Amino acid sequence: MNGNDNSGPKTVAELAEQLRGFAEDRDWQQFHTPKNLAMALAGEVGELLAELQWLTPEEAAHAMADPELGGRVRAEIGDVMIYLTRLADVLGIDLVRAAEDKLTEVARRYPAERVRGSAAKAVRP
Amino acid sequence: MNGNDNSGPKTVAELAEQLRGFAEDRDWQQFHTPKNLAMALAGEVGELLAELQWLTPEEAAHAMADPELGGRVRAEIGDVMIYLTRLADVLGIDLVRAAEDKLTEVARRYPAERVRGSAAKAVRP
Amino acid sequence: MNGNDNSGPKTVAELAEQLRGFAEDRDWQQFHTPKNLAMALAGEVGELLAELQWLTPEEAAHAMADPELGGRVRAEIGDVMIYLTRLADVLGIDLVRAAEDKLTEVARRYPAERVRGSAAKAVRP
Amino acid sequence: MNGNDNSGPKTVAELAEQLRGFAEDRDWQQFHTPKNLAMALAGEVGELLAELQWLTPEEAAHAMADPELGGRVRAEIGDVMIYLTRLADVLGIDLVRAAEDKLTEVARRYPAERVRGSAAKAVRP
Repeated sequence: MNGNDNSGPKTVAELAEQLRGFAEDRDWQQFHTPKNLAMALAGEVGELLAELQWLTPEEAAHAMADPELGGRVRAEIGDVMIYLTRLADVLGIDLVRAAEDKLTEVARRYPAERVRGSAAKAVRP
Repeated sequence: MNGNDNSGPKTVAELAEQLRGFAEDRDWQQFHTPKNLAMALAGEVGELLAELQWLTPEEAAHAMADPELGGRVRAEIGDVMIYLTRLADVLGIDLVRAAEDKLTEVARRYPAERVRGSAAKAVRP
Repeated sequence: MNGNDNSGPKTVAELAEQLRGFAEDRDWQQFHTPKNLAMALAGEVGELLAELQWLTPEEAAHAMADPELGGRVRAEIGDVMIYLTRLADVLGIDLVRAAEDKLTEVARRYPAERVRGSAAKAVRP
Repeated sequence: MNGNDNSGPKTVAELAEQLRGFAEDRDWQQFHTPKNLAMALAGEVGELLAELQWLTPEEAAHAMADPELGGRVRAEIGDVMIYLTRLADVLGIDLVRAAEDKLTEVARRYPAERVRGSAAKAVRP
């Protein structure tokens, strides 16, 4: 409970439940409106970008090989996932299912045989 | 496969695998560097914010009750999850575990009994 | 007036005034709260990132040489400046002066002779 | 020079020049690619959002009345302006002119008489 159970959640649904309990224990549901959580999500993505912004593409590709940098990147990704999961939960959205549905739609729009190797503006997963 | 299997992934690991196959089928791994994916993640979060920005807090809280707005919000959240999952996969990070570890650390820093109801700058999940 | 005067503003203060008139003419001041404008700013920055995300560093460096891409990048930068100017105006902040004050502080923190050529995490303008 | 001249720039062009000198003095031009600067811009916008995210709309509207919060918001807005100005300069874009051109286009698309008081998704400055 409250994020300190080390056996931990394994699914997004369990993580969402844990975050819900975490917010309730602190009476933070009042702050967790969709707009506020979306802002917090953007804030954490900003911190993630800040870790990578001055690195060359090569340095960024090996970020995880550096324990300090890797640890910071992992922690920022954890923060982003926390707010994304919480936002989806507050809105009643199944996060993995939403991603899967979007991917199905994108796969239809960009058939592999047609777009192979191209990353034109409109062509992206 | 390739995002068009409707039975779909249920775990983040399965979604990550599906996204990997999706990128490989299109030869898009070359574009999926950590920096590029982090930018794409921020871009999708920006689109999510754009859906919510002019709504009152109350309107945003009921966004999912409006089929059109709700559909757009769900699609944007799906996009954000796609890029976050792909970025974590490229970096070799377990997304749910990273979130859980961060939550454990945050829970220790902000014990429920001490911060209840307060959302001072430094106090957030 | 209303953004259609081609002789145009030359200073940020004039742009801010023009944007104020634009919002008043449309009765949009009600939507232009600091939180909403900050979200809109982030949304536009996301669109700017989307234009650059799949480009190589070299392609991005020559973005303006491509009339179509260059036009889109310029338009997105215009959007970002619009919301940043509007947000600063609503908060009563002098944008250029705020940047200058921050730069003065950063210059003190990172004297040229000490940080030349280094872009370690904490070392940035 | 180098950000420590208190008489300070008054125009965006002067700020851009000052930032250029600042980067040259530190040999930081190598890091100031369009992609890196766009990421830094997003990172600073994220920090700005973080200052506002848990506030009620009312609290955010009065942010500048609180010296501490107001000082932080002003500093973050300064940071955003620094990177936006630097990015535009590196790309050879006149920031105020780009904003003005975009506003002219938006004003044409949303005539005041037609959109007054409405902030539907597609209707925004």
